[in-house]
Amino acid sequence: MAKKHILIIPGDGIGPEVTTWGKAVLEQIAFQYGHEFTFDTAMMGHAAIEATGNPLPDETLEKAKASDAILFGAVGHAKYDNDPSLKIRPEQGLLKIRKELGLYANLRPILLFDELLDASSLKPEILKGTDILFFRELTGDVYFGEKKRSEDRNTASDLMIYHRYEVERIARKAYEAARLRRHKLCSVDKANVLESSRLWRETVQEIAKEYPDVETEHMFIDNAAMQLVKNPKKFDVVLTANLFGDILTDEASQIAGSMGMLASASIGDGTGFFEPIHGSAHDIAGKNIANPLASILSVALMLEIGFGLKEEAKAVTQAVEQTLKKGYRTSDIANTKDDVTKVLGTEQMGQKLLDHLQQAVSI
Amino acid sequence: MAKKHILIIPGDGIGPEVTTWGKAVLEQIAFQYGHEFTFDTAMMGHAAIEATGNPLPDETLEKAKASDAILFGAVGHAKYDNDPSLKIRPEQGLLKIRKELGLYANLRPILLFDELLDASSLKPEILKGTDILFFRELTGDVYFGEKKRSEDRNTASDLMIYHRYEVERIARKAYEAARLRRHKLCSVDKANVLESSRLWRETVQEIAKEYPDVETEHMFIDNAAMQLVKNPKKFDVVLTANLFGDILTDEASQIAGSMGMLASASIGDGTGFFEPIHGSAHDIAGKNIANPLASILSVALMLEIGFGLKEEAKAVTQAVEQTLKKGYRTSDIANTKDDVTKVLGTEQMGQKLLDHLQQAVSI
Ligand SMILES: CC(C)[C@H](C(=O)O)[C@@H](O)C(=O)O
Ligand SMILES: CC(C)[C@H](C(=O)O)[C@@H](O)C(=O)O
Repeated sequence: MAKKHILIIPGDGIGPEVTTWGKAVLEQIAFQYGHEFTFDTAMMGHAAIEATGNPLPDETLEKAKASDAILFGAVGHAKYDNDPSLKIRPEQGLLKIRKELGLYANLRPILLFDELLDASSLKPEILKGTDILFFRELTGDVYFGEKKRSEDRNTASDLMIYHRYEVERIARKAYEAARLRRHKLCSVDKANVLESSRLWRETVQEIAKEYPDVETEHMFIDNAAMQLVKNPKKFDVVLTANLFGDILTDEASQIAGSMGMLASASIGDGTGFFEPIHGSAHDIAGKNIANPLASILSVALMLEIGFGLKEEAKAVTQAVEQTLKKGYRTSDIANTKDDVTKVLGTEQMGQKLLDHLQQAVSI
Repeated sequence: MAKKHILIIPGDGIGPEVTTWGKAVLEQIAFQYGHEFTFDTAMMGHAAIEATGNPLPDETLEKAKASDAILFGAVGHAKYDNDPSLKIRPEQGLLKIRKELGLYANLRPILLFDELLDASSLKPEILKGTDILFFRELTGDVYFGEKKRSEDRNTASDLMIYHRYEVERIARKAYEAARLRRHKLCSVDKANVLESSRLWRETVQEIAKEYPDVETEHMFIDNAAMQLVKNPKKFDVVLTANLFGDILTDEASQIAGSMGMLASASIGDGTGFFEPIHGSAHDIAGKNIANPLASILSVALMLEIGFGLKEEAKAVTQAVEQTLKKGYRTSDIANTKDDVTKVLGTEQMGQKLLDHLQQAVSI
């Protein structure tokens, strides 16, 4: 029996709607497998700014540090996007918690469900067999380098910066993962132009020597963005910096059919942080149409990577598979052309998932 | 009758093979339309380093400044990619000439030939009707910001920096272009994280007021990388920074079926610079299999944007269309599944193109 304390940070937009179902799945798993999961909730992002003026209140950070894992929704709000001059911004909460918890490795598996091959813009024959695990560095790069604005406000800069140890630690994690997969690692940079990328490449070349059983490839980011569309099957583990990882994983999510299906795990030295790849999607918030499956699959990652509960993680993933197999879809992944598809709202989809989870285990 | 002096910079890898055919098309156009085009040749990139130690010899820069337009091939070599510690690098030649000639706007049209719909990884129904014109900023950003390496070589950085005037001048060019197209402009940045992007967004918001007839959208780079795959048709003019433009245009090139088909025009205050989007592709250099059409389409851009010779530009584009219609393909765009396709080498394709150009005009 596992005893775990889990912090839920619903955040903004569709965050609350989808984490509700992530939490429900955790409760069901605890019940079915006899674990003891306790929960707490905290604020972050726009919601936290509205309530406290701070996108990451101290209380949230304290609760985060005291928990065994965090299930997060999303942050962001159109208000800030339309007004670049606002000083306090929802995303600062997310960036700060990543930094404070030392979450330097963001794992984003591109998991393809056969049932959703049709939901992608890519031809099924290009897509079929795609199985990529991204390792995106998460606490360095131009995200955290010094930001400056000149007094006349006419010049602005961000420092893109990497330290060798930052590259080393995530490279090792990525190589370890490659060993458990197809033994291929592609490191993505822009070493033909950027000094920080040259450090990145040099360092990965060094670490590669520790893993002679893994085949290493180095690719420029522009080429990688292209190859991902051209031939996604060729990738196994992809290792890259914070900014490039942000771009490539979103691109890859569409290749996989929908952002609404993709989960991520951020890990480092302490508490793990689990979240969907999708954002706050304010335009569909509160309408009961958001896809809860990415949050639910984030729970599967929490169970597996965070708690080492492999069987429980598998039960969740299989319940997702079963639900899709029966033709249940939220509108983002619905193929309106066939007639087995049954389009559900967020709550109905969440409930179906719980039903399948219950059945799967009781068999 | 136009009198123009054109500098050919073949560069590295497949550069010389493909620019040969670009030049042949220019000669044919001059002959057919009674223009006087004179030519000179100069070195850049790896070829120039081998010969002179300098990726952009002074002589090349002088010739460039003295010419009316430049037709460029590609730069780059695996030797430098594998050894990030080399100080002198082929790409420096390209970056320096962009800066020295003030080529701040890089136009990359994503042109779809119906005959090549099949060559893309995307489903034809997603693709059909796609017509995007990228405006990539080309002389600022992290490409040109200060690069640093610490003495112990364990820390490296690049400054991502923009000045307001740099954003203003390319934004105006992009809005002017949008007015001649579908009146839509999407500006791509990462304003939720980067200060330089916030300056970018603010500035574009200001310039947008001068163009009330153009519909402006702002999109984060991660989302844009995704939307390009999901629904490329939704884009008209896309305006973005140097690094983001590098990534997005390569991604878009694959959407269009092949890099081997895409041309670009770099313009600014002086001489225009015309080049394929594809790189030096050393693995296929000298094998007579590279696709010369991107270089030939770069010539079409030179004729239209550089010299204002619209009819001549159209003749070149139509000759490309005709050649594809007859089933002629280089291997990168060949669909091996049908039997009308005839796969040609670089030289045969170049020759076919010239034949069609001659016929088109003699009709
Ligand atoms: C919200 C934003 C700051 C964030 C990022 O860029 O890291 C998001 O896009 C992500 O990928 O988690
Ligand atoms: C060769 C390289 C420096 C160049 C760039 O990144 O600008 C190329 O990728 C391009 O897009 O023209």
